[in-house]
Amino acid sequence: MTHTPDAAVPVQQQEREADVVRQVLRSFEACTDPRLRQVMQSLVHHLHAFVREVRLTEAEWSEGIDFLTRAGHITDERRQEFILLSDVLGVSMQTVAVNNEAYGGATEATVFGPFFVDNSPEIAQGGDLSFGAAGEPCWVEGTVTDADGKPVAGARIEVWEADEDGFYDTQYGDDRLAARAHLFTDADGGYRFWALTPTPYPIPHDGPVGALLAATGRSPMRASHLHFMVTAPALRTLVTHIFVDGDELLDRDAVFGVKESLVKSFDTQPPGTATPDGRDLHGRSWSRVRFDIMLAPDGT
Amino acid sequence: MTHTPDAAVPVQQQEREADVVRQVLRSFEACTDPRLRQVMQSLVHHLHAFVREVRLTEAEWSEGIDFLTRAGHITDERRQEFILLSDVLGVSMQTVAVNNEAYGGATEATVFGPFFVDNSPEIAQGGDLSFGAAGEPCWVEGTVTDADGKPVAGARIEVWEADEDGFYDTQYGDDRLAARAHLFTDADGGYRFWALTPTPYPIPHDGPVGALLAATGRSPMRASHLHFMVTAPALRTLVTHIFVDGDELLDRDAVFGVKESLVKSFDTQPPGTATPDGRDLHGRSWSRVRFDIMLAPDGT
Ligand SMILES: [Fe+2]
Ligand SMILES: [Fe+2]
Repeated sequence: MTHTPDAAVPVQQQEREADVVRQVLRSFEACTDPRLRQVMQSLVHHLHAFVREVRLTEAEWSEGIDFLTRAGHITDERRQEFILLSDVLGVSMQTVAVNNEAYGGATEATVFGPFFVDNSPEIAQGGDLSFGAAGEPCWVEGTVTDADGKPVAGARIEVWEADEDGFYDTQYGDDRLAARAHLFTDADGGYRFWALTPTPYPIPHDGPVGALLAATGRSPMRASHLHFMVTAPALRTLVTHIFVDGDELLDRDAVFGVKESLVKSFDTQPPGTATPDGRDLHGRSWSRVRFDIMLAPDGT
Repeated sequence: MTHTPDAAVPVQQQEREADVVRQVLRSFEACTDPRLRQVMQSLVHHLHAFVREVRLTEAEWSEGIDFLTRAGHITDERRQEFILLSDVLGVSMQTVAVNNEAYGGATEATVFGPFFVDNSPEIAQGGDLSFGAAGEPCWVEGTVTDADGKPVAGARIEVWEADEDGFYDTQYGDDRLAARAHLFTDADGGYRFWALTPTPYPIPHDGPVGALLAATGRSPMRASHLHFMVTAPALRTLVTHIFVDGDELLDRDAVFGVKESLVKSFDTQPPGTATPDGRDLHGRSWSRVRFDIMLAPDGT
């Protein structure tokens, strides 16, 4: 690990630094919201520990201020650099881990990412979410059950993904909605729709987060995936992805989102193979995947 | 302190969370700049410890993202919300502490703050830095010496302060420079100039940092002070303030900048008292303060 041995800092100096921490912690004692006080005091404790441990230089502090400023200025309605930052530092995935403790066989959660929008079009069972986005058709089907295995009818499933060029609709530069939709499970908890076979893509890396990844020798690539958010009354909302078995990026996803239980077999079907719903794909290849979803009870 | 007892988190869950930390730390192993690797790994270690310790909720995480976004959007050429944030969390003062270890009797450093600009006008010895900013005149004088007490001729002294309404020129909304200047010590290391008697002011609190202070029951007020930055070849640059003895805000400065050694006696002079340089103040009161500055050697 990276700890500077305390022994390198004179005791009197250590005491001066500890006194700064104490002063700041004390300043939050008057906070009447106990949870806010706890969060702020813990944040102060850990930020100061970081500064002291690495002996942060004033030039490095300035670089940090500049980094945050650039992140703020590149962030707008369609670009969220702070989420990217949280993602590449694993803070997003850690928050997911803390908030989604394992519950029996319930499906695991993973990062939300910055590309969800809340006005996706609704599609019927068997519908197609591509809305003109390019990519190989992919038939996705499964069931939604609760932790007892009971089917959940009427669960809302939001799905979103990048096109075959690695772009989400929010990156197109116009207001089109594509490669995203929502649908509801049928009376048996089943669902099925046409999506696009997921392909790998880089997170937006033309900003400060991309520069950080480059400077630290890290790749901006995400393993191929399809985003899901599943909501149903009295059940824990599930935000997750499914990943593609065999993808070489599975062990170096830029945002640490991969979990083994979420890696699924996307089976490629040769051109001309009959489709589940009789759709004519005009001689194109397609793929199919099954994703059965189990939701934990709410409040777990 | 604020630690959640680890016992409250099941061992298997602790292990899952620790695994996220390990994955992120590992992702920085390929970084060829050892200092950058150290800083990023330490930052990750402490940010994850914070998230785990407080069991940060997903809603709180979102609030954090929104906070940073608002801070970024209010920041421009003249407003630096991230420096304010660093200041009110004591991170600035901790960085100052880490980088300015006590060196004999050398003058102590304190926070830089967000109001320095690097194109201040030069004034002669005995000149006036107010340039039309309102406030009670204050005669400031002293000497600059090295740690052996040897006078430092030609040291550059930058001085800046708020006017009597608590505003810096950068907050006026035009391009005026006022209540800031630089001058150089004379052959004996001496300096003297007219400033304004410092008055308390709030840090800019109409943005997210102000909202944070309000939510946590903290005051945005800074103890009255006059900023100094002193540079001279082969000596450690000193960034500091002097504070006003008797100011009731000394023990609750919003940015934790006060150090006892920097509290100076500003002696009020009744109207009509003769001024050191014979300046006619037309019957106004004025004050005077002495600030002798000792610079540590460079690289200490
Ligand atoms: Fe994605
Ligand atoms: Fe100030």
